[in-house]
Amino acid sequence: MKIAVDAMGGDFAPVEIVRGSVDACREFNTEVILVGKEEEIKQELDKLSCQGLKLDIFPASEAIAMDEHPASAVKKKKDSSLVVANNLVKKGEAAAVISAGNTGAAMTASLFNLGRIEGIERPAIATPMPNKKGMGVLLDAGANADCEPENLVQFAIMGSIYAEKVFGIPNPRIGLLSIGEEETKGNKLTIEAHQLLKSTKVNFIGNIEGRDVLKGNCDVIVCDGFVGNTVLKLAEGVSSVLMEQIKEAIKGNPIALLAGMMLKGSLSKIKAKLDYTEYGGAPLLGLNGVSMISHGSSNAKAIKNAIRATIKAINEDIVGKIKEAVN
Amino acid sequence: MKIAVDAMGGDFAPVEIVRGSVDACREFNTEVILVGKEEEIKQELDKLSCQGLKLDIFPASEAIAMDEHPASAVKKKKDSSLVVANNLVKKGEAAAVISAGNTGAAMTASLFNLGRIEGIERPAIATPMPNKKGMGVLLDAGANADCEPENLVQFAIMGSIYAEKVFGIPNPRIGLLSIGEEETKGNKLTIEAHQLLKSTKVNFIGNIEGRDVLKGNCDVIVCDGFVGNTVLKLAEGVSSVLMEQIKEAIKGNPIALLAGMMLKGSLSKIKAKLDYTEYGGAPLLGLNGVSMISHGSSNAKAIKNAIRATIKAINEDIVGKIKEAVN
Repeated sequence: MKIAVDAMGGDFAPVEIVRGSVDACREFNTEVILVGKEEEIKQELDKLSCQGLKLDIFPASEAIAMDEHPASAVKKKKDSSLVVANNLVKKGEAAAVISAGNTGAAMTASLFNLGRIEGIERPAIATPMPNKKGMGVLLDAGANADCEPENLVQFAIMGSIYAEKVFGIPNPRIGLLSIGEEETKGNKLTIEAHQLLKSTKVNFIGNIEGRDVLKGNCDVIVCDGFVGNTVLKLAEGVSSVLMEQIKEAIKGNPIALLAGMMLKGSLSKIKAKLDYTEYGGAPLLGLNGVSMISHGSSNAKAIKNAIRATIKAINEDIVGKIKEAVN
Repeated sequence: MKIAVDAMGGDFAPVEIVRGSVDACREFNTEVILVGKEEEIKQELDKLSCQGLKLDIFPASEAIAMDEHPASAVKKKKDSSLVVANNLVKKGEAAAVISAGNTGAAMTASLFNLGRIEGIERPAIATPMPNKKGMGVLLDAGANADCEPENLVQFAIMGSIYAEKVFGIPNPRIGLLSIGEEETKGNKLTIEAHQLLKSTKVNFIGNIEGRDVLKGNCDVIVCDGFVGNTVLKLAEGVSSVLMEQIKEAIKGNPIALLAGMMLKGSLSKIKAKLDYTEYGGAPLLGLNGVSMISHGSSNAKAIKNAIRATIKAINEDIVGKIKEAVN
């Protein structure tokens, strides 16, 4: 099984991408094709001990920047690391593609090269969402800003398969993110989706609210991509502001400063629990192939963990299982 | 100026509502009409020293529960404290109404009794939103789950007036909550609203994202009621889970426990900063009268602060200023 990694995508590319890939090859005994500017990749590889690892370089002369317009960048830069990596999957030379680059471009390139599974109207980004009790999945995290109720139903089906097969959660509980627990509460989209979800085979537990997102009372959180993206960014923002405030409060007080030093280990543990690098990438579910999107600021650890999730998605035949479920 | 307070609405009614009202009368030298079950209110008042305060009781025999269906409860319970309190404003016997009860019912009762300002299509709940740098306003916090772009424009205008007049923020910066900073990013609603907002007189600074909500880079956050309600509940949920995790981390470690005790003061300060009771109520803007909705779990302090904001809204003639702005 070969995994094509976009070596030029991400805030810390190619350094961290190459490092994470090398770590993954060593740890999971997998094969990685690093796609990108050969010289730069080689330069990084030379600094690491890669003997015996199944690592290839596939050259691509261009890179898509984080702020480029997704569709036009993918169209124009045919020899970009992202497009070439997706092409390798299309041609069957790789089993999956991973990119920490421009999310919109990664979606566009995968949608264009791998295509949708028949019956899936809208592929969705399923992002790992740590909660108090463990691990969950939230989808859509931003692929579809406007959704129909039927889209949310397909997100629920795909998210359920992913949570079960990749995170090992048996019979995942599906929660519909709304603004009230009752089925009559919500906007038009969630009220209709609620009714449709009741008649599916997924383990639908009903509506959840914003305050439940981190509680872990469900395993898969279903919402449209606008709400999902807002939830992710807000959760990130609130944690970082709180942590900042704690640090500031500690600074202003010598006793608290001492206490803060004593607490450092405990605070780090909490930070780690909510740290995206622990969980790696978010798959674009609903495509005819495995495409994993990693956080733009991915470090080596995030890339390694994204490769781990990718291996699992391939081994568990997530694509095949989604096909079966919707057809 | 008399303020009608729904003494039976809220998780801690009538005790905390009566106490907060008494505190407000004393502190702000204002007049409060406590609306509700006379005996229960008197019983509470007897425990407090109310001499010389301008406090009245207006009897109402029924109460609307937190979980009753809003529209049918308001329709059915004509002699409920909530409906009677709203009626006092309608009849000109009170200048404003405050309720910490069933939010949907409070909205319905005020909408029905006070009516909309001509030209305002959808009244919105403007909730105080503390941020890193101080105080902001978010609207709509949940009155309108489905919105048109034109509604968001009116929210921006009303929020701007409220932030300036009640919170004293000169020329408030208005941010549109979306999923990307560029004006082309968002869902249909926000992309269209962005274009409309550019041609209004408000100080529109463009899109903000979930991660900006607590940063304080804008003073008024505009979004539909579904997103706004989710944002509020999520921010509350994330802070409480984080604080919980810190407490747990401290418990498990004797050194950390000591440190935690030393840090207690600093953590309380942070909690206070994000505490809704400090800021009191959220007005339902766009009505022909002042209607303030307070958090269901309001304590005396929250009620007192809601009364403070109400006095300011009346004195600054928020209703008149909104009328001018939209006509």
